[in-house]
Amino acid sequence: MQHEIFMQRALELARMGWGTTNPNPMVGAVIVKGGRIIGEGYHKKAGEPHAEINALREAGEGARGSTVYVTLEPCSHFGRTPPCADALVKAGVKEVVIAMEDPNPRVAGRGINALRQAGIKVITGIMEQEARRLNEVFIKYITSDMPFVIWKCAMTLDGKIATANGDSKWITNELSRQYVHWWRYRVSAVLTGIGTVLADDPMLTVRLPHINIEKQPVRIIADSLAKTPLDSNVLNIEQAPTIMATSWSADPSKIETFKSKGADVIITDGKDKVDLVQLMRELHKREIDSVLIEGGPTLAASAIEEGLVDKAMVFIAPKLIGGKGLSALSGNGIARMADAWQLSGVSVKRFEDDVLIEGYLKA
Amino acid sequence: MQHEIFMQRALELARMGWGTTNPNPMVGAVIVKGGRIIGEGYHKKAGEPHAEINALREAGEGARGSTVYVTLEPCSHFGRTPPCADALVKAGVKEVVIAMEDPNPRVAGRGINALRQAGIKVITGIMEQEARRLNEVFIKYITSDMPFVIWKCAMTLDGKIATANGDSKWITNELSRQYVHWWRYRVSAVLTGIGTVLADDPMLTVRLPHINIEKQPVRIIADSLAKTPLDSNVLNIEQAPTIMATSWSADPSKIETFKSKGADVIITDGKDKVDLVQLMRELHKREIDSVLIEGGPTLAASAIEEGLVDKAMVFIAPKLIGGKGLSALSGNGIARMADAWQLSGVSVKRFEDDVLIEGYLKA
Repeated sequence: MQHEIFMQRALELARMGWGTTNPNPMVGAVIVKGGRIIGEGYHKKAGEPHAEINALREAGEGARGSTVYVTLEPCSHFGRTPPCADALVKAGVKEVVIAMEDPNPRVAGRGINALRQAGIKVITGIMEQEARRLNEVFIKYITSDMPFVIWKCAMTLDGKIATANGDSKWITNELSRQYVHWWRYRVSAVLTGIGTVLADDPMLTVRLPHINIEKQPVRIIADSLAKTPLDSNVLNIEQAPTIMATSWSADPSKIETFKSKGADVIITDGKDKVDLVQLMRELHKREIDSVLIEGGPTLAASAIEEGLVDKAMVFIAPKLIGGKGLSALSGNGIARMADAWQLSGVSVKRFEDDVLIEGYLKA
Repeated sequence: MQHEIFMQRALELARMGWGTTNPNPMVGAVIVKGGRIIGEGYHKKAGEPHAEINALREAGEGARGSTVYVTLEPCSHFGRTPPCADALVKAGVKEVVIAMEDPNPRVAGRGINALRQAGIKVITGIMEQEARRLNEVFIKYITSDMPFVIWKCAMTLDGKIATANGDSKWITNELSRQYVHWWRYRVSAVLTGIGTVLADDPMLTVRLPHINIEKQPVRIIADSLAKTPLDSNVLNIEQAPTIMATSWSADPSKIETFKSKGADVIITDGKDKVDLVQLMRELHKREIDSVLIEGGPTLAASAIEEGLVDKAMVFIAPKLIGGKGLSALSGNGIARMADAWQLSGVSVKRFEDDVLIEGYLKA
């Protein structure tokens, strides 16, 4: 149990990097000697020191003969910073306890080997599940050419995301909406469709009280025919960066106007429709590790049908509206209930009377 | 705390009457002397002894000088059985602790007065909320001319109760479906519409493993034009009793056939549609204290629009189907989200990966 207690603390430290480490993982480290914590650290953002280095600095000379708890296998390669495995060896630590191996198949195990070869005792797999959940984004990003994609939606208890005439303000309560902002802060990008832009003119920025937001997520607008009005919030680049995703069918002069407003433009190969697979690959190339889809039922259904969605976050508010309201997902749909997309790893959270159901789509 | 511990036990005993006391309340009683339980009892079914009498029998002479915990105010009138308040006085109990007063405004307080006049100390309101929740059916039934109405539905996480071509087998898992049977067992009647009868030919009976079902709930079919096929399960009266609810527009000869099959028929004043308000009043007259609506989106929406539904039970399965699937509620619908029907007293249960959200519609 002692291992779990200190690893729990390391995971808490890792979580301090929520929203600022992308596309790096969140990592926390705790240095323990004689049953006492003598150093703590976490990774704050790409280019800045790794968790182990911060913890070693705090421990100083005391690190010699200590046990180090770290949520992710220490790196063994020179990236933007020197390898942490070397630093641990140099500090003379006795033992390293690791929650999970590096998910990058090209480097997995190398940090562990380097430590063992230096005579350090290494234990792995302590609270591995929690560590993997915390870095679900990084794992997807580093092991594929796609970002981790979350579909978020909010519906009534009779399954509607808007009334028949499109009114959707508000379905969920303020606490739920603030939690969504917490996730906007977590991800690198927020994706919505032209329909939502025309209907709501959303800002798609993070607004969280008491938190100084250093960077806003990139706003991505799936706008195949480049119809976004030039005075839309999403084309106000002072609020946050924006990528306009269009198709070859879009008017090139309109695309030029988007660029002149400061937006980045990705022209996908779709005709009259954005090729979402291609878009996601392009985003991955730009180091966008995660995308939160906050669009309407058509965009969301396309992303799910293309197999792009990793995680669903569905808020359900305890209210009923009946009638011909909008459903959460449209698209082609599944013909037989037995063939439905099944979610795994389901969890339930409550925000006052709102209920959030989360789960993972099987790959 | 001692009061709560014994009242908790009395509530557990009361719950033993689940599904068999209708239209009477579930009541439990515990008799305590010297800190020890010397008698326990519950009400099993209408016409049989009340909880207090069963507990007094078990306690015997020991009841003299004891404290009696009872979940509902003891009756003071001759009904199908003699008044319990008299029996408690006669047994010489010292103190009576009551969870809730009799909700029947015509008799509330009389049992308590009778006890106090006999010199017995009476404490009320211990675990009152739990007692009221347990007898939500009885409270509605005894204080109005309507049964307690529950709307139950099962939908996917994208808010659909069937695929575009009507396939709905199965949305929820076996545990959820068994819980629905537990509620069918609880209520006096199950209501569905002709659409569901034509699509699924349901039996609407209680099937629960390990429970010997003594009575089946009455099946009520809202069938305004008397279109139910004569070989439908619901017209097999050997399975369970059935009430066919029709309108004046129904063919009288068809109604006669329903009767010849052994079904009861309620002809409501609706034209081409069952008048649900009138139907519910008729059911109340027949001592049907509770109705579980297991129909489609039109029937459910009508019942909600008419203000007949007291409680919603919505099962949500963690699966997605997209497309033009059926929504949980149709009908006229609410135009503005701010005007939605709000649920109160929301609670969440999990059945493996299925989630049940329950709440009460404000009267």
